[in-house]
Amino acid sequence: MTEPDNIDRLFLAMADPYRRSFIERLSKGPASVKELAAPADVQLPAVLKHLRVLEEGGIVVSEKVGRVRTYRMHKEAFSAMSDWIEQRQREMNAAFDRLADLMAELPEEKDH
Amino acid sequence: MTEPDNIDRLFLAMADPYRRSFIERLSKGPASVKELAAPADVQLPAVLKHLRVLEEGGIVVSEKVGRVRTYRMHKEAFSAMSDWIEQRQREMNAAFDRLADLMAELPEEKDH
Repeated sequence: MTEPDNIDRLFLAMADPYRRSFIERLSKGPASVKELAAPADVQLPAVLKHLRVLEEGGIVVSEKVGRVRTYRMHKEAFSAMSDWIEQRQREMNAAFDRLADLMAELPEEKDH
Repeated sequence: MTEPDNIDRLFLAMADPYRRSFIERLSKGPASVKELAAPADVQLPAVLKHLRVLEEGGIVVSEKVGRVRTYRMHKEAFSAMSDWIEQRQREMNAAFDRLADLMAELPEEKDH
């Protein structure tokens, strides 16, 4: 049962504004650590720590060429989260529809 | 700027297997605290604490009738998260497409 742990990690990785800002940047294309750190108002060690969380969660991947490490999004970064949310949303919609059907079957309320 | 904090809270609320199990149950329809607690292998105070996190995140709403408090999903529970993920996914797809176009334009590699 590794799946729940992994989904925990995915959602937790998203629950930080710095990590989301890195994901927002990387969704537009690969970037080096330096490029990612430039607009962030945090020190490099904190940036590297956040990137490690994203990489361990399977959200980003990195590659080192020479002295430059470049990060990019994992192609399936959001799949597990999206799938989980979509399934819940489908069930919620079905439950709301059933409720609407039930209410439509109620006898009309009389003014009194 | 309340939106980032709220998205933090949303993703954080999802990053716990007990809270996700309550969401899974409630997506199928409303349930009382007792019904939610029954299958969970945690004590009632822990269940109530998790439900408070979900309610503060705007994911569930509750209503007390007599002595029974009933929880149900907030209709827009997943909207902010889904919107954020979908926007990133669109940007990622566009970036992958641009990359594919670039690669298609490269001169074919010769065997040698």
